[in-house]
Amino acid sequence: MTVYGGIETGGTKWELAVGTAPDDVRATATVPTTTPAETIGRALGFFEREGPVAAVGIGSFGPLDSKLGSPTWGHITTTPKPGWSNTDVGPEFRRRLSVPVAFDTDVNAAALGEHRWGAAQGLDTFCYVTVGTGIGGGAMVGGRLLHGLMHPEFGHMRIPHDLAADPFPGACPYHGDCWEGLASGNALAARWGAPASELADDAVWALEARYLALGLVSVISVLSPERIVIGGGVMRRPGLLPLVRQEVVALVNGYLDVPAVGAEIATYITLPALNSRAGVLGAIALAQTA
Amino acid sequence: MTVYGGIETGGTKWELAVGTAPDDVRATATVPTTTPAETIGRALGFFEREGPVAAVGIGSFGPLDSKLGSPTWGHITTTPKPGWSNTDVGPEFRRRLSVPVAFDTDVNAAALGEHRWGAAQGLDTFCYVTVGTGIGGGAMVGGRLLHGLMHPEFGHMRIPHDLAADPFPGACPYHGDCWEGLASGNALAARWGAPASELADDAVWALEARYLALGLVSVISVLSPERIVIGGGVMRRPGLLPLVRQEVVALVNGYLDVPAVGAEIATYITLPALNSRAGVLGAIALAQTA
Repeated sequence: MTVYGGIETGGTKWELAVGTAPDDVRATATVPTTTPAETIGRALGFFEREGPVAAVGIGSFGPLDSKLGSPTWGHITTTPKPGWSNTDVGPEFRRRLSVPVAFDTDVNAAALGEHRWGAAQGLDTFCYVTVGTGIGGGAMVGGRLLHGLMHPEFGHMRIPHDLAADPFPGACPYHGDCWEGLASGNALAARWGAPASELADDAVWALEARYLALGLVSVISVLSPERIVIGGGVMRRPGLLPLVRQEVVALVNGYLDVPAVGAEIATYITLPALNSRAGVLGAIALAQTA
Repeated sequence: MTVYGGIETGGTKWELAVGTAPDDVRATATVPTTTPAETIGRALGFFEREGPVAAVGIGSFGPLDSKLGSPTWGHITTTPKPGWSNTDVGPEFRRRLSVPVAFDTDVNAAALGEHRWGAAQGLDTFCYVTVGTGIGGGAMVGGRLLHGLMHPEFGHMRIPHDLAADPFPGACPYHGDCWEGLASGNALAARWGAPASELADDAVWALEARYLALGLVSVISVLSPERIVIGGGVMRRPGLLPLVRQEVVALVNGYLDVPAVGAEIATYITLPALNSRAGVLGAIALAQTA
């Protein structure tokens, strides 16, 4: 039976898998994100040992070039991550493994995974948001992953920031207090001086829920998704998601007269069904399109 | 030859047309937006006189229900416009004229018109933004008008608002200082005490350009459009569009490494080629899909 390779490249680690579906994962591995040469080399070693695979899907942090036919297709481009800007990733796997490679954002891959096997099955238009080290978003519209000019970069929109109440200037090297700069795991750690997992004060999480909701209201206003699937390490905080839902409903304030942004908010904004495997399983789904 | 009816319902007037294309408009009329019964009656009279038309396309202010098969399809729903909430529009034209009716937002209709005959020909994913009395946005993704949960409502996202620099609380009855509440024609008039067309102070337009750019950055971050077509009465202010473009480039700050958000910004953010006729001509294009 044909098997596929999936890679989720993250800022701190790469998740690798060989298989065909969530219940048919033949092998997995995690490698730390160090230099491009070392990290890519370890991933190639994994697929050489566990393969052969028919194709590889890569869901990557970005920004990146996923435009087929572009001279820099398959490259991570302007990422603020040190050492990783303008890195050839997709073409390298294609050359070294001699198989087709599909290359997209980690969040578009996760969206595809959730559409195929998770919380977004059967939907036409929805988005996947991750709140981890950074904030990212991917989307499917009309049953296709959204690309457009490049790909969505949800994390870099601006949201209201009351400097009197929250003097933290923001953690984004490009934009300071964009959505990611205010509400990502990195932002939480920089603002409060401890990792998100160690923050217990209710005020911390009330502010976080407010910022997350402000961004989601922009997503709803622009994209009109049928569902928002929201994952990432920060969302594992108990009680955070219900607070986010409350804030979204309060911010929309009845303007959108649909149950999704009212009585049905708990199914409208939901965790990924594939949990933390959405990205790497989505990458396997991506490979199947290569 | 088969001709079509197009309606752009605006907050102050309805634009009506019969024809097939921009260079084949057989008849036009403008009726003031008064009560639903009177306004719809006048529009029906126009099509009865100038028809018969094979189908009618309606591009309407919203929020509205454009979901085919919904029991309230063709209704304007929660609009803040007095007298117009929960108004049956599409079904009324279908009943009275006995022709197919296509019903969508004014901005989705304008997007369709610009895609067919204007500044967005050949594009896969783009958006149309109008800055007039209110602010609205429509979009096409993968060659289809974007609907999702309902339809885009660009105007109601939140953007940063420095109350110290701009103490105006915002003009939106639902949200106060959402994008529309801060940057629409209504907001300009309420903040400065004179219609937008009479405001000459550079500081007025610098602030307006900043707010418009903040919203566009959210649109770019979420939707990744290949082009932004931006129209509406406020955009006719000489010099405003170049300021908006500058602010967008400054806000993105090199994060998106594409010429569109740099050297090519003047073609990336552009006025509608159909000018103020985008909506009513788009409604004719909509009728052709009915």
